[in-house]
Amino acid sequence: MSTGFFSTEKIAFEGEDSRNPLAFRHYDPNEVVLGKRLEDHLRFACAYWHSFAWPGGDPFGGQTFDRPWFPDRMSDEMAAANLKADVAFEMFSALGVPYFCFHDGDVRPEGDSFSENTKNLNVIVDLFEKKMAVTGVKLLWGTANLFSHRRFMSGAATNPDPDVFAYSAATIKTCMDATHRLGGENYVLWGGREGYETLLNTDLAQEDQQMGRMLNMVVDYKHKIGFNGTILVEPKPQEPTKHQYDFDVATVYGFLKRHGLEKEVKVNIEQGHAILAGHTFEHELATATALGIFGSVDMNRNDYQSGWDTDQFPNNTPEVAMAYYHILKAGGLTTGGTNFDAKLRRQSLDPDDLLAGHIGAMDTCARGLKAAAAMMEDGGLQKALDDRYQRWTAPDAQKMLNGDLDLAQIAEKVIAEDINPEPSSGRQEILENYVNRFV
Amino acid sequence: MSTGFFSTEKIAFEGEDSRNPLAFRHYDPNEVVLGKRLEDHLRFACAYWHSFAWPGGDPFGGQTFDRPWFPDRMSDEMAAANLKADVAFEMFSALGVPYFCFHDGDVRPEGDSFSENTKNLNVIVDLFEKKMAVTGVKLLWGTANLFSHRRFMSGAATNPDPDVFAYSAATIKTCMDATHRLGGENYVLWGGREGYETLLNTDLAQEDQQMGRMLNMVVDYKHKIGFNGTILVEPKPQEPTKHQYDFDVATVYGFLKRHGLEKEVKVNIEQGHAILAGHTFEHELATATALGIFGSVDMNRNDYQSGWDTDQFPNNTPEVAMAYYHILKAGGLTTGGTNFDAKLRRQSLDPDDLLAGHIGAMDTCARGLKAAAAMMEDGGLQKALDDRYQRWTAPDAQKMLNGDLDLAQIAEKVIAEDINPEPSSGRQEILENYVNRFV
Amino acid sequence: MSTGFFSTEKIAFEGEDSRNPLAFRHYDPNEVVLGKRLEDHLRFACAYWHSFAWPGGDPFGGQTFDRPWFPDRMSDEMAAANLKADVAFEMFSALGVPYFCFHDGDVRPEGDSFSENTKNLNVIVDLFEKKMAVTGVKLLWGTANLFSHRRFMSGAATNPDPDVFAYSAATIKTCMDATHRLGGENYVLWGGREGYETLLNTDLAQEDQQMGRMLNMVVDYKHKIGFNGTILVEPKPQEPTKHQYDFDVATVYGFLKRHGLEKEVKVNIEQGHAILAGHTFEHELATATALGIFGSVDMNRNDYQSGWDTDQFPNNTPEVAMAYYHILKAGGLTTGGTNFDAKLRRQSLDPDDLLAGHIGAMDTCARGLKAAAAMMEDGGLQKALDDRYQRWTAPDAQKMLNGDLDLAQIAEKVIAEDINPEPSSGRQEILENYVNRFV
Amino acid sequence: MSTGFFSTEKIAFEGEDSRNPLAFRHYDPNEVVLGKRLEDHLRFACAYWHSFAWPGGDPFGGQTFDRPWFPDRMSDEMAAANLKADVAFEMFSALGVPYFCFHDGDVRPEGDSFSENTKNLNVIVDLFEKKMAVTGVKLLWGTANLFSHRRFMSGAATNPDPDVFAYSAATIKTCMDATHRLGGENYVLWGGREGYETLLNTDLAQEDQQMGRMLNMVVDYKHKIGFNGTILVEPKPQEPTKHQYDFDVATVYGFLKRHGLEKEVKVNIEQGHAILAGHTFEHELATATALGIFGSVDMNRNDYQSGWDTDQFPNNTPEVAMAYYHILKAGGLTTGGTNFDAKLRRQSLDPDDLLAGHIGAMDTCARGLKAAAAMMEDGGLQKALDDRYQRWTAPDAQKMLNGDLDLAQIAEKVIAEDINPEPSSGRQEILENYVNRFV
Repeated sequence: MSTGFFSTEKIAFEGEDSRNPLAFRHYDPNEVVLGKRLEDHLRFACAYWHSFAWPGGDPFGGQTFDRPWFPDRMSDEMAAANLKADVAFEMFSALGVPYFCFHDGDVRPEGDSFSENTKNLNVIVDLFEKKMAVTGVKLLWGTANLFSHRRFMSGAATNPDPDVFAYSAATIKTCMDATHRLGGENYVLWGGREGYETLLNTDLAQEDQQMGRMLNMVVDYKHKIGFNGTILVEPKPQEPTKHQYDFDVATVYGFLKRHGLEKEVKVNIEQGHAILAGHTFEHELATATALGIFGSVDMNRNDYQSGWDTDQFPNNTPEVAMAYYHILKAGGLTTGGTNFDAKLRRQSLDPDDLLAGHIGAMDTCARGLKAAAAMMEDGGLQKALDDRYQRWTAPDAQKMLNGDLDLAQIAEKVIAEDINPEPSSGRQEILENYVNRFV
Repeated sequence: MSTGFFSTEKIAFEGEDSRNPLAFRHYDPNEVVLGKRLEDHLRFACAYWHSFAWPGGDPFGGQTFDRPWFPDRMSDEMAAANLKADVAFEMFSALGVPYFCFHDGDVRPEGDSFSENTKNLNVIVDLFEKKMAVTGVKLLWGTANLFSHRRFMSGAATNPDPDVFAYSAATIKTCMDATHRLGGENYVLWGGREGYETLLNTDLAQEDQQMGRMLNMVVDYKHKIGFNGTILVEPKPQEPTKHQYDFDVATVYGFLKRHGLEKEVKVNIEQGHAILAGHTFEHELATATALGIFGSVDMNRNDYQSGWDTDQFPNNTPEVAMAYYHILKAGGLTTGGTNFDAKLRRQSLDPDDLLAGHIGAMDTCARGLKAAAAMMEDGGLQKALDDRYQRWTAPDAQKMLNGDLDLAQIAEKVIAEDINPEPSSGRQEILENYVNRFV
Repeated sequence: MSTGFFSTEKIAFEGEDSRNPLAFRHYDPNEVVLGKRLEDHLRFACAYWHSFAWPGGDPFGGQTFDRPWFPDRMSDEMAAANLKADVAFEMFSALGVPYFCFHDGDVRPEGDSFSENTKNLNVIVDLFEKKMAVTGVKLLWGTANLFSHRRFMSGAATNPDPDVFAYSAATIKTCMDATHRLGGENYVLWGGREGYETLLNTDLAQEDQQMGRMLNMVVDYKHKIGFNGTILVEPKPQEPTKHQYDFDVATVYGFLKRHGLEKEVKVNIEQGHAILAGHTFEHELATATALGIFGSVDMNRNDYQSGWDTDQFPNNTPEVAMAYYHILKAGGLTTGGTNFDAKLRRQSLDPDDLLAGHIGAMDTCARGLKAAAAMMEDGGLQKALDDRYQRWTAPDAQKMLNGDLDLAQIAEKVIAEDINPEPSSGRQEILENYVNRFV
Repeated sequence: MSTGFFSTEKIAFEGEDSRNPLAFRHYDPNEVVLGKRLEDHLRFACAYWHSFAWPGGDPFGGQTFDRPWFPDRMSDEMAAANLKADVAFEMFSALGVPYFCFHDGDVRPEGDSFSENTKNLNVIVDLFEKKMAVTGVKLLWGTANLFSHRRFMSGAATNPDPDVFAYSAATIKTCMDATHRLGGENYVLWGGREGYETLLNTDLAQEDQQMGRMLNMVVDYKHKIGFNGTILVEPKPQEPTKHQYDFDVATVYGFLKRHGLEKEVKVNIEQGHAILAGHTFEHELATATALGIFGSVDMNRNDYQSGWDTDQFPNNTPEVAMAYYHILKAGGLTTGGTNFDAKLRRQSLDPDDLLAGHIGAMDTCARGLKAAAAMMEDGGLQKALDDRYQRWTAPDAQKMLNGDLDLAQIAEKVIAEDINPEPSSGRQEILENYVNRFV
């Protein structure tokens, strides 16, 4: 029986000509592209936190959303958690997303002790198990909120207080257990407080050691309990901290390599975090692919000109298309998915705004994926790349690349052959026009 | 015999009360701080390029400087190179800097072939040898300009054309030879074109392989010729490229580690490049120190609000003091130095503006170093750090850090001991006030 | 007779399915939208400078383009100017753009005196007159380059030296004469050096007075010579200067108002400059419209993440569509046009890259304009706006807005009626989805 | 009788050598500089909101501060407001600041209606009146919080709902009454929600009209009630909104001029807001001075690299010195003051951190002011400026500036006199070095 929170129980695919704001115009889960259903390509997931736990506040103002399960409307915290879960699964079902994601703190009340938190969480996990069985919605990933509570204000794994490290480790264990039990396909770590406000009170080397230890324990525990999902680290450069250690994909790679984890851990890349680090989303995707650590994506967009995380639903098809092009080049999503770590603007008060935000995002992704697939099939970009680097396939070039020649030998060769290379066009505009044929 | 380019042949230390704009007020090379002469702490170097080769242009305007050795004033290129060298060494001597730095392209005319470039360079190296002997000025580092000429427009080591790779390798060899012959204490690689304009025409994995190969060859060649200096990579995030591979210290570390070079290569950190990467200078210094790859610094400042490299002389003492504090914490400069990769504003036309820019910079560094040394001696920052992390020295904490406990064991401990940590003040304002006692 | 510089003399419209990289897929000049031909809506113009005068340099490297009229290929400056003009008009004709734009400095050699510059310019104006007659290409706007030469390094109108002010005034007169003679439809002023590097040597009030005087003289001269075109100021926030006085549209409005020019002068808005000022392009367009000073656009895009002017050809249709939506709302382009102040990437060496860049841009604009027109016809955005502000049309609301009530009276009313407003949804996501129906 | 919240009741001036973290080292209120006591120059004010109402939250975490008057510690709201006021005035007295500032929302509980809010506010105003009489602390400015409550989520004066406009007008009236009654020397308007999230739902011209009307009513009411203070608008470019109408000083000037208010209203300039708008603090100060609208300052600093308002206590003396130099050039503070709209870092939990933050800020300001005063007395910067613009004092130059010559006449003069100006050095580095003699 529906809570009646939303105005509809099912969003249908109605095709491009539909003017129904609560219908899909591009996302037909069963449409087959590159031999695979769109649903299986895109692996959409909704984020529990932004849609159901966030009250609409910003640094200069408080709650704007008026949800029946919020504390000002319902004082029984466990009852509220139940109602919230009801509405959440109604949204997942209405949208037809195959997955959701959550932090412990989104779904259970905050208790007075670690034990109470664990107990509260387990009640919700029981509930989720039933709802997942009924709806068929699966868990893309679980994660621990180690950043909101004041105990984490100076870091979780990287806290100067070893008790916070312990508390964090215990919380992660609980959340990994919950994720495992719910059949989660990944487990995510976002180090929102692993960083610093000022170097004046921070010992970088010590905190690096702490963070490396924690991640090693996570990997060990994964194997110990037989969790087959992927461990994912989510890079972000700053905000809330002045500096966050998992700055970007390249930084995370260095960290993983330093701690011997580059084969065990992958990255969950968010467009908004890429932007804040001064990168394009494609850059982060391509970098992760080149380094062999691409895992999953948070497909929300950031305002390019707001210096903080705006977590908006994606709506620019050409940009999303290029992102999926890189994902398809990487072999597509395996355990990863397309998660919307996206929130409504705080003025979007109506329940159906939640549906609309996700519908627009899913349609944009469907268009983007289809455009990317068409580019893959056409092969024009790959051909341009192959042509451009073609000379490196020559035996002489390979000798240089393989280390058969040293600097002095190459210098002799340059002199002997009077090598004086002429540049050739990079053809950027032509390639950009090519892409515009598909988007 | 002086060329008469500058109005004076020697800048003297006159002390704080001096109003002579062409005197040092804070930099007395012989002042002893922490048991070492200031000159030996600071190891100042001037950059040949900005002061003697740059015509004053910017993206919207051409040459403003009117130097006797510029092509519009002197058509004989080798004669011009000689005059330029005369004036350069006059400036080094006047300022009393112990070091200078150069690219091949700064000091010799561009020839029609690699061989001619080499020949031209060697003539200048002969000249430098003599001038260095006479003046006592030494070479902090040499480097190859692999970014200005159009042949490098699509990269040097990372060019899609293996001939450019070969040409670059040969050029590096020549420049390493020159640096070795001149007793250079380091050799620097700045990959100004190692990056991309668009991912549409770029194969990241291929280019990474090329760049790794090149750096390995550099290290091999260093050992082969018995060069004892340090190989330094200089990070920068972008400009002129859309993305530069050596984005920041953490990225370079990952690259070094990936190619097995993290014990062979260090970083030359520039304040301006740190800023462009979204970091503070101290962050990059502290990160390099924590990762064991700190080498040298380019102590020019960037405008915080201009999104391009402004390469200004440093003038903010409190900021410079914190930089030297981190350098002193790292053990101070060894083969590295304090290089001013700084240029006059293009409106600063007068020859003596060159002196003034450097004098102000050197005085600022001297004040900063002395303040940093005083903080080291006082020990307040270190004590605050020790206090903050003190609980990690306890046996139980060390057990967690050393891997003696796993997630499940720590979780049991949290439950058993009902760990529920209370945060304590990070004391940032108090520490900032502390620093202000010294600057 | 063609110079043979390009591989084709005419770019045809071939429709969406064309795979010809040198054909239009969306821009059919004769297609009628909202009762007007696309050509008359879009009023495309090419910029002489980037395509024909710019050598491909950037702050870290020199010339990459190899054009027959460049000094390294042709020493006779007037012959080179002629060849350059031949190729330029070949491109205008091939693309079928109705307009072009130029600075004096793009088209004539730099002479040794003001008189020689004027003489050189007049020779080229004679030439342009003939070419315009033959090709039918018209002049959208002319302008004076008061930023490249070293004499302008400290400003043109705002120079501390009144002789530079005089020289600038004389140059503007010459360029206005040329523009008038060639039937130019606008005259543009971009104050690339009207700003400062440091406040330490700058008197803001004095420079404001100078700039106000210059613009007043320009307006007076326009009327004196009977020039019917529009005087346009082009805002930009910085680069090459640390601060540019014409920071953005709102700043220019304040300046115009201060000097009594808000009815005489309009703005030429560039997407790239909007971005650098921290605004969206639409913001600048909508602001200019609301303030009654919208004139023309430079429809090149800037990289959102490069802190300098990248002047790329537009290629993101959704963004361009929103820009044209605001232009159509403003009543469309009148004397203004769609100028591409866009340059090839410096690696795009081939002559046909110039064509491709413009083709892609024109197609993107055509798609954008058509999408914008469809949104106008559909009326959904306007209706949403009307609904949202509808309560302001009530008599009581109008009384407040018209000044019939004062603060105290409104306060009494709030108390008397116990006004306690409930917010309603801003519907941002729904409106974004709506837009995506058209782009 | 003290609440005992802080560890001390009085911060003393102990001089530079003091190591007492709770003493002033530079701020002696009675020190006379340029003929005026430091206290009278600096006119320090503390901000009620950050120090006493803000719980320490950020976008990713909640309350960190544990204050006895917070709702989790004290449920009686008016009792809490009283305790908060007790502690606030203890801090003002301990620091010896002559002024404080407040929003209505900082000091009184939020009621269920406008009337209840007014009633609550008046109770606190009564209390403040007594405390001000006892302590001698005065009110620098009052202001209305028209941004935190959800009713303002779409704007206050610029809300699409005229009821919100009315509610805002009534609230401003109440706050102006309170400010007037308490002898406030200014009244401030910061339009934290006057802007937009998306242009899709925004009518700029309509909202401009609303905002202009509101400010006109404020000015009328000021005169009506005989309030002699200054009406101040506080510019900020964005955050929380995507765009805030009062973007920067130049934008506010244009707005004032458009609505005929440029002689009635001045600006309150915040360093952090200047930074977010892409300006230096000095730029905003100098611009306001040149435009005749400089009023007051919020002397908190922003992190240059965080894209949001960090509101930190100032600690960089050289920067603060330049700010005061511009303030002294503007004639110094009259009704304005030096307000610290600054908050502790959220990890700075201890009550005495509040004292330390302000002490460091006040010391930094005292050093800065004294350095600025020394520069004024020395006169070097002014002399450099006079020299640079000296040629504009010549009769011929004045004729151009006064409009006695038109473009054509100036062009004739340039030709007749063959004017071909040579640039001269801008001397930026020399001027920067000069400043470093004082800071």
